[in-house]
Amino acid sequence: MSNPTITVSAADMLQKFTSILLKQGFTPEKAMQCAEVFTNNSIDGVYTHGVNRFPRFIEYIQKGYINIQAEPALKHQWGGVQQWDGNLGPGPLNAIHATNSAMQLAQQRGIGCVALANTNHWMRGGSYGWQAARAGFVFIGWTNTTGLMPTWGAVDSKLGNNPLVIALPYEQEAIVLDMAMSQYSFGALELAAMKNEQLPVPGGFDGNGNLTTDPGAIRKSRRPLPVGYWKGAGLSLLLDILAAVLSGGLAVHEITQKPNEIAVSQVFIAIDISKLGNHSAIAQVVKNIITNYHQSIPDGNNNISYPGERVLKTRQRNLANGIPVVKEVWEQVDGLTG
Amino acid sequence: MSNPTITVSAADMLQKFTSILLKQGFTPEKAMQCAEVFTNNSIDGVYTHGVNRFPRFIEYIQKGYINIQAEPALKHQWGGVQQWDGNLGPGPLNAIHATNSAMQLAQQRGIGCVALANTNHWMRGGSYGWQAARAGFVFIGWTNTTGLMPTWGAVDSKLGNNPLVIALPYEQEAIVLDMAMSQYSFGALELAAMKNEQLPVPGGFDGNGNLTTDPGAIRKSRRPLPVGYWKGAGLSLLLDILAAVLSGGLAVHEITQKPNEIAVSQVFIAIDISKLGNHSAIAQVVKNIITNYHQSIPDGNNNISYPGERVLKTRQRNLANGIPVVKEVWEQVDGLTG
Repeated sequence: MSNPTITVSAADMLQKFTSILLKQGFTPEKAMQCAEVFTNNSIDGVYTHGVNRFPRFIEYIQKGYINIQAEPALKHQWGGVQQWDGNLGPGPLNAIHATNSAMQLAQQRGIGCVALANTNHWMRGGSYGWQAARAGFVFIGWTNTTGLMPTWGAVDSKLGNNPLVIALPYEQEAIVLDMAMSQYSFGALELAAMKNEQLPVPGGFDGNGNLTTDPGAIRKSRRPLPVGYWKGAGLSLLLDILAAVLSGGLAVHEITQKPNEIAVSQVFIAIDISKLGNHSAIAQVVKNIITNYHQSIPDGNNNISYPGERVLKTRQRNLANGIPVVKEVWEQVDGLTG
Repeated sequence: MSNPTITVSAADMLQKFTSILLKQGFTPEKAMQCAEVFTNNSIDGVYTHGVNRFPRFIEYIQKGYINIQAEPALKHQWGGVQQWDGNLGPGPLNAIHATNSAMQLAQQRGIGCVALANTNHWMRGGSYGWQAARAGFVFIGWTNTTGLMPTWGAVDSKLGNNPLVIALPYEQEAIVLDMAMSQYSFGALELAAMKNEQLPVPGGFDGNGNLTTDPGAIRKSRRPLPVGYWKGAGLSLLLDILAAVLSGGLAVHEITQKPNEIAVSQVFIAIDISKLGNHSAIAQVVKNIITNYHQSIPDGNNNISYPGERVLKTRQRNLANGIPVVKEVWEQVDGLTG
């Protein structure tokens, strides 16, 4: 590959991002919070929504798609359900705020649901699962997106990949499922095509309408596959409907009309499990499930891991050895400081 | 096929089921409620969890796996979260009760979560989605099951298919997603094998560990495929963990130890959307999404339908023409009256 990689320490990356965000006009507190999201996503190996995405985040600010002065505003509350307007502020800041609000509701009322309209891309949904789970809460959340995937049986992209996040505390860390409704992201298809690799399982259709593992053919046909075919298509549709109904915000078909992916709708549900019983008894229930899961008989040399488990290893490695960054990307980031 | 089919009217089926349940010792009210679930599932075309399953339901009662005298009991409440013990009562009755409790919580508190331990098979999860959605609520619910599917990369069945149901009101009816975490149920594999048909998409692994569309090979290997491969496996695991943690009931690995699938754990979340804004405005949001969805460009002659849409057509047809029932199955049911 013609993309040399360099290594950047987490501290250097955080400092770099913070200084760029300060220069864009963020308050020190918000600059730090936002820089942490992009740095942590990179530490965790989710580079597509970490360092690789940072330049586009700045571009969206400069073009006025993201309003860095905006604060989320409570529109309506009924019991444990709150509707917020994100006012087109930075997606990660709005999502952190919404997660905090959902946890506060859960603390007071057992379960809380925050629906957020008119916000921007939250980057990596898992961030908010980790946030809530580490604070001791069960978390269920999702976002809608622009249309990028056809429903089952169709050729045009009327569905979002609408990532769904489910998380809960586990030992000193968390179990975090972060699952887009497309089998592969466009980023993953691009990477496989660049490396001239076939996908391990079919990821979409080729130009003749046949299922294929050829990433280039799928990029060309623009027909990526929903997870589980008709099932993931249905789940994507329902997540979009609930996001729009609960938040009073835009649905996928409306976001798709915009020249860029802005003003998405999101849902954040938190449950306070500390009130459901003895902490160590609950922890033991989870531990027993994971212990049994790890005893699965692997097919060959496969590694059996639970959602979030591999992230912990990547995190440890990147914290110890530095974060691998495509040189060209880091030069782009560097250019934003000037 | 050597299975001739007869036609039974919905009224006759309901009457037959009710009389059998009365004979088993159900109270008239419970007999009727339970008979309605099995009849409605059959009207809606979900025969596997309607008429075809009824004889096994009676068998489980006779063997003492299902306790028809049992009532669900509230174990613990904290705010909008309730934990119930199903006391091994009839799964459909416990699930109807839990759905009602979740709706009551939502009515009082915006959102409610009922977690039910120690219950029995709820038959068709969609039933409770229809129940809540028709009453005007958003519904998110799931159950765990016995282990019947390997996780991604494994050969032994440590995961349940843990069906997930998401529903909301739509026009005079509802949109109801009812999605097990295996790509195909064993019933579907059995049916395809019997008809000597290949599956439309890969449904599992053959004996050599290759993905296959041959239903017989999957039944033999006992390696059905999770929806979306690693993604559905992760979702199945998380749904099981949450069901066990929230309800204080058994997890898949514990249910799998039992000689029969009993004492499962379930979650029922309801949100009262009537408090989130004008009814007709919310209805219009959903209508706009579905209208756009229906405008998808089909691949060939494919019919683009939303989850639950085809059920409405089957329901209409079966109500008009009677419910098709395999003759042998109806003879079995008939035998239960004697």
